[in-house]
Amino acid sequence: MWWLITVLSFLLGRVCDGGITSSYIREAAPSTEIPKKDFPPPSGYNAPEQVHITQGDQIGRSVIVSWVTPVNKHPKYMTYWEANDKDGIKRNRVRSKTTTYRYYNYSSGYIHHATINKLEYNTKYMYELGKGNNTRRFWFTTPPEVGPDVPYTFGIIGDLGQTHASNQTLEHYLGSRKGQTVLYLGDFSYADVHPYHDNEKWDTFGRFVEKSNAYEPWIYIAGNHELDFAPEIDEHSLFKPYKHRYHVPFRASQSTSPLWYSIKRASAHIIVLSSYSAFAKYTPQYNWLEQEFAKVNRSETPWLIILLHSPMYNSNNYHFMEGEGMRVVFEPWFVKYKVDLVFSGHVHSYERSERVSNVQYNITDGLSTPVKDPSAPVYITVGDGGNIEGIADSFTEHQPDYSAFREASFGHALLEIKNRTHAFYNWHRNQDNVSVSGDSIWFYNRYWFPKEESTYSSSTKTA
Amino acid sequence: MWWLITVLSFLLGRVCDGGITSSYIREAAPSTEIPKKDFPPPSGYNAPEQVHITQGDQIGRSVIVSWVTPVNKHPKYMTYWEANDKDGIKRNRVRSKTTTYRYYNYSSGYIHHATINKLEYNTKYMYELGKGNNTRRFWFTTPPEVGPDVPYTFGIIGDLGQTHASNQTLEHYLGSRKGQTVLYLGDFSYADVHPYHDNEKWDTFGRFVEKSNAYEPWIYIAGNHELDFAPEIDEHSLFKPYKHRYHVPFRASQSTSPLWYSIKRASAHIIVLSSYSAFAKYTPQYNWLEQEFAKVNRSETPWLIILLHSPMYNSNNYHFMEGEGMRVVFEPWFVKYKVDLVFSGHVHSYERSERVSNVQYNITDGLSTPVKDPSAPVYITVGDGGNIEGIADSFTEHQPDYSAFREASFGHALLEIKNRTHAFYNWHRNQDNVSVSGDSIWFYNRYWFPKEESTYSSSTKTA
Repeated sequence: MWWLITVLSFLLGRVCDGGITSSYIREAAPSTEIPKKDFPPPSGYNAPEQVHITQGDQIGRSVIVSWVTPVNKHPKYMTYWEANDKDGIKRNRVRSKTTTYRYYNYSSGYIHHATINKLEYNTKYMYELGKGNNTRRFWFTTPPEVGPDVPYTFGIIGDLGQTHASNQTLEHYLGSRKGQTVLYLGDFSYADVHPYHDNEKWDTFGRFVEKSNAYEPWIYIAGNHELDFAPEIDEHSLFKPYKHRYHVPFRASQSTSPLWYSIKRASAHIIVLSSYSAFAKYTPQYNWLEQEFAKVNRSETPWLIILLHSPMYNSNNYHFMEGEGMRVVFEPWFVKYKVDLVFSGHVHSYERSERVSNVQYNITDGLSTPVKDPSAPVYITVGDGGNIEGIADSFTEHQPDYSAFREASFGHALLEIKNRTHAFYNWHRNQDNVSVSGDSIWFYNRYWFPKEESTYSSSTKTA
Repeated sequence: MWWLITVLSFLLGRVCDGGITSSYIREAAPSTEIPKKDFPPPSGYNAPEQVHITQGDQIGRSVIVSWVTPVNKHPKYMTYWEANDKDGIKRNRVRSKTTTYRYYNYSSGYIHHATINKLEYNTKYMYELGKGNNTRRFWFTTPPEVGPDVPYTFGIIGDLGQTHASNQTLEHYLGSRKGQTVLYLGDFSYADVHPYHDNEKWDTFGRFVEKSNAYEPWIYIAGNHELDFAPEIDEHSLFKPYKHRYHVPFRASQSTSPLWYSIKRASAHIIVLSSYSAFAKYTPQYNWLEQEFAKVNRSETPWLIILLHSPMYNSNNYHFMEGEGMRVVFEPWFVKYKVDLVFSGHVHSYERSERVSNVQYNITDGLSTPVKDPSAPVYITVGDGGNIEGIADSFTEHQPDYSAFREASFGHALLEIKNRTHAFYNWHRNQDNVSVSGDSIWFYNRYWFPKEESTYSSSTKTA
């Protein structure tokens, strides 16, 4: 059956200007949000909930475990032990830092963040939160030691929300059983589309994604729906719920803000940028990124990957050219430092660019058209997690040359790094069986093997 | 004598591509800073110093008076009275709000801000600060009521610093006896170029400009030298000295930040933007500006003027294209709302653009060259106040078409609004007698009289 879908999808693909606009378009109706009652808290007095983990240092030997409890009586520590110590005899304790916040008429629960340090590489750990009958147990596996040929698989999800489509995306991702860490491209709960930015939606989102995020790190970036700037209700502090709920190891990369930072994981150096912070020359984000690029060591981490919410290359009418401000400032560095891949969300569809750059422009030379450039990254928009606002189904007419493949479907992607030269990338649409690929390609590393990739590999079976 | 300079300057002017690059180039050596000891505080115990005023509301009936005292014993109120009440019998008192800050090893004096409200229009007021023998008296004149044909003259100064060149600029400006309010284009004290951002330089700057700023409002905008971001000495709070020392009436224009706001004064609607804050779609500055433009009423305030530090059109190699990030985001609004003039600093020289726009670009259409556009503003860089870093004497070769006149000299400008249709603009270089103009032009209002101006009127006598 998959081959029939594959062939049909291939045949129906409309080729314009060299790029493919897939004819596979999901209905445009807004996705229906799953009601709050379907995300109940775990039962039991003061049971820990909304458990989520992320990398806690720059190299992967640390994990930040975060959870929420209704009251503050709870023991503020967590325990963990190596999974091969089956009885959990050598337990370790880590104390959490606890924060709360108010947002208009909402008071958060007690949000705990505990950082576990000095973990062994490549090791499965169990961890427990809570007390007595209400103890909850989870586990995670640390990554291999950072090194140039270490294989590793990242899941890529953006603009997830908490709709039925969101659930399908997450289930398909989990069903692939391949991802080891999620690169999460921003726009989490969509609480801000509800009256007074109903922050209970942050809680239900935390419960929804626990099935993934309690067991594998998500690398977080902030999207526009994390701004939560609402002067009309006296909420002026940008990213308030996000910053309280999602802690990231920004200090480990000498960043001064949780909105931009970097991590190394396996063979990848991953840089997180903030589309909604200042990025002009002289600003903290600009200064930090300039220093950060100079530190990247491709002999240690061959794969240089950037995550930012608002795409710099997008041929959808939704959010068209919104990323231009940052593009004109940062793109020259992306090319100079031979970034492999730039992942974005924001646009609620899928798009993969050619390797193009647009950095020759000097105002009067007319050289402002993106051109093929082997030193340029591929820009990939995976804003199709399943958000509440619906699919972005209005592509610009005449697919531009910079766009290699685009499709208005919900889905997720996987990046399977094999070694310093090769990575298999695959985007999956929710309508298909998990074994069917919507768009896949072998990426070649820009530093170690800067050959031209085959740009035509969509709609093939990957399993 | 002036006519000889004028004729020579004219003849020496090098015409390239239609624009003029003046051959009048000041020596490029950095300007020498005036030593601290030459800016002593006023004598007397706890004498008020660094007195400066700005508009305190949106329409000009309010003034914020700010001053510094070494200790906090000082009466925290100021007194003021109408100047025609010669004996000061009907005195009014206003209590100040007082703030202090630390910056690394520096502790500020007590910085007082007192807002006087409900002033009469077009009226001279006396005001007094301090106590007993150490009382200091100043005065200011309120503007006429906001209206479409109200004449008014703005001084325009940027990147002043506190060098001998800075002093010459300020003396020439004061010598013209024409300016009623200064539009100050950012970069104040250049404290940040000194070790640990020596904040005593903020104090000496405040003393230096008191001769102007205690008597007429300066409309402030923040430049990159106000960022004072220095994580290496644990100073992470952006714009800390600036925000403590210079208060602006941002709430009056529904802004949520002192870094962007607007005022109306006489026949002008003046919008202040922040080059070093976030400006992408969805950010507070973007949201605010979108709403602000919709509120502008050209029947009330025909002249729509924007102040921002980093120029969007600049053909100097110094800071070339640094304003592009903001240009691609905001320029379409500047054209749509027919902004008359955009004043910037940052580049330490002088430049005036043609009326050009560059808003057709859609990534693939190649339409990225600035074109003449009667709806576009003229962009003027007056970053030539006299800063410590020296003159920006490296213009791009082949003066681009968008550049009408450029010259690497220190100086200041005056904008004399005559009525709803005409304004006489004049830039003055410090080397000349105050009566000699370096560049002058009659600007026609974009809303009421959108005719093409004569673009060739430099180096004429204005007195």
